[in-house]
Amino acid sequence: MQKIEFEVCLTPELLHLHNLEHKSVVVVDILRATSCMVTAMAHGVAGIVPVQSLDECREYQNKGYICAAERDGKKIEGFELDNSPFSYMDSSLRGKTIAVTTTNGTQAILKSKKAKNIFIGSFLNLKAISQQLLEISNPILVVCSGWKGNFNIEDTLFAGALSYDMSQYIDLQQDAGIIAEQMYKLHSANLQTLVQQSSHCKRLSKLNIVKDIEYCLSFDRYQVVPEYKESIIKLSHV
Amino acid sequence: MQKIEFEVCLTPELLHLHNLEHKSVVVVDILRATSCMVTAMAHGVAGIVPVQSLDECREYQNKGYICAAERDGKKIEGFELDNSPFSYMDSSLRGKTIAVTTTNGTQAILKSKKAKNIFIGSFLNLKAISQQLLEISNPILVVCSGWKGNFNIEDTLFAGALSYDMSQYIDLQQDAGIIAEQMYKLHSANLQTLVQQSSHCKRLSKLNIVKDIEYCLSFDRYQVVPEYKESIIKLSHV
Repeated sequence: MQKIEFEVCLTPELLHLHNLEHKSVVVVDILRATSCMVTAMAHGVAGIVPVQSLDECREYQNKGYICAAERDGKKIEGFELDNSPFSYMDSSLRGKTIAVTTTNGTQAILKSKKAKNIFIGSFLNLKAISQQLLEISNPILVVCSGWKGNFNIEDTLFAGALSYDMSQYIDLQQDAGIIAEQMYKLHSANLQTLVQQSSHCKRLSKLNIVKDIEYCLSFDRYQVVPEYKESIIKLSHV
Repeated sequence: MQKIEFEVCLTPELLHLHNLEHKSVVVVDILRATSCMVTAMAHGVAGIVPVQSLDECREYQNKGYICAAERDGKKIEGFELDNSPFSYMDSSLRGKTIAVTTTNGTQAILKSKKAKNIFIGSFLNLKAISQQLLEISNPILVVCSGWKGNFNIEDTLFAGALSYDMSQYIDLQQDAGIIAEQMYKLHSANLQTLVQQSSHCKRLSKLNIVKDIEYCLSFDRYQVVPEYKESIIKLSHV
C-alpha cells in the first residue's frame, strides 16, 4: 500500500500555503470548539452550522435555531449555549440543528472549504477519525485552529497524536508534522502538564474550566466522525 | 531585574500578528542566509545590503557591488557569490559592501523593518546575540525565516537555543516559544540528527552541501552582532 501524505497546518493564517483540493482536512480546536462539536454529535445533535459572525448567528437564532456563540473563551450574552462540552450533553438537544460561532474553530472550518473532505477532530474521537482517513486514503492535512492566528500547543499535540496513531500508513515529510509528532511522543504520558503551560489554558483557567480541559484531553470517548459538507456538520457515513 | 518578554514568530507569514515597535528582533535563517551573513561580518566584510528581488540585486551589481543571489538553495547565474558560508571567508571581500538576495532570509529581514533593533542571528554567534539582547533589554522577538512561508525545524531550534541560553532573564509565555525551547532541549546533544530529517535539509543534501549544514549548526564561532539599520547590515556597537 502506498503511504498517505500527512501534513500539518499550524494555524489558519498559513492555510494559503496549502493546496486543499483532493485533501482530507481534519480541523481541530481542542479548547474547545471541535471538542464541543464531537460531544454534541455523539449525544444526538442532528447537525451543526458553523458561522463566521455574531450577526449571522443571530439570524439563525431568529429562524428558530438553538445557538452557541463564544468570543475570547466567553459565552456571548443572548445566545443559548456556551463553549463548554458539558453543555452539549443535554438531552433536549437531541435531533436538533444548532448554529455555532467561535473565536477560532468555526473560522478554521470555514476557511478549509476547498478541501475534498472536512472532518471535525478532537482527542475524544481520534481513533474514529484515524480510521475514516485510512478508509478514504486522500492526502491528509490537519488544520490547527490556533488562537487568533497564532500557533497553539493543544491543537499541535492533537496533530502529533493523530500522525503517531497512523504512523505505519503515512508519509510524514513536512517539518511541522515532524515537530508535532515529536512533541506528542514526548508528552503523551501526561498531556495535561504541557497543555497547562499553554497560553490559552492560562486564559481559560481564569474562567474556571479545569474540568473542561481535562475532558477535552481524554482519548476516544466517542466513535463519531462529524463531517462538514454543504455548509453543515453531520455524521459522516463512508 | 524585571524579566524580558521573549516571543517566537515561526514564519514571516505570521509577522503581522506581532507588534514590532519597541522590540529587539533577531532574524534567523540557519540554512543558510543568516549563517552566511554572520560569517561574512566575522571575516571583515564591511556591510551587507539585503534586497528583495533579483532585479534590485542586479542594480547593485551595476553600481559595482559584489552580489550574492540564491533561489531555492541554488546560486543564480551571473552573480558573484553563492549561499555557502565558506564563500564568505574569502579575504578579497574584506572591507567590501555586498548586496544579497535569498529565498527566505533576506525577505524576513526586510519584513521586520518596523522593529526597534534588528539583529542577525545564527548558532555561529548565539552567545554574542544573547549578550546584546540582555544589554538592550527590549522585549525580544525571534523571527524564523522558514521556507517559503512554511515553518521549519532549524530556525525554530535556534529560537529554542537562544531562549534556553537566556532562560534566567526572560519571560517565556507564548506557545511557540515554549515548544521551540522544548524541541531544543530534547535535541541539544545532537541537533544534526533532527535537522537532517528536515525538509530543507533534504533539499540541500541533493545539492551536496553536508559540510555547510554541519558548519551552520556549530555554536559560538564568532563574537559578532550584525545589525540591520538604515537599509544595511553592519556590526553593532551598543
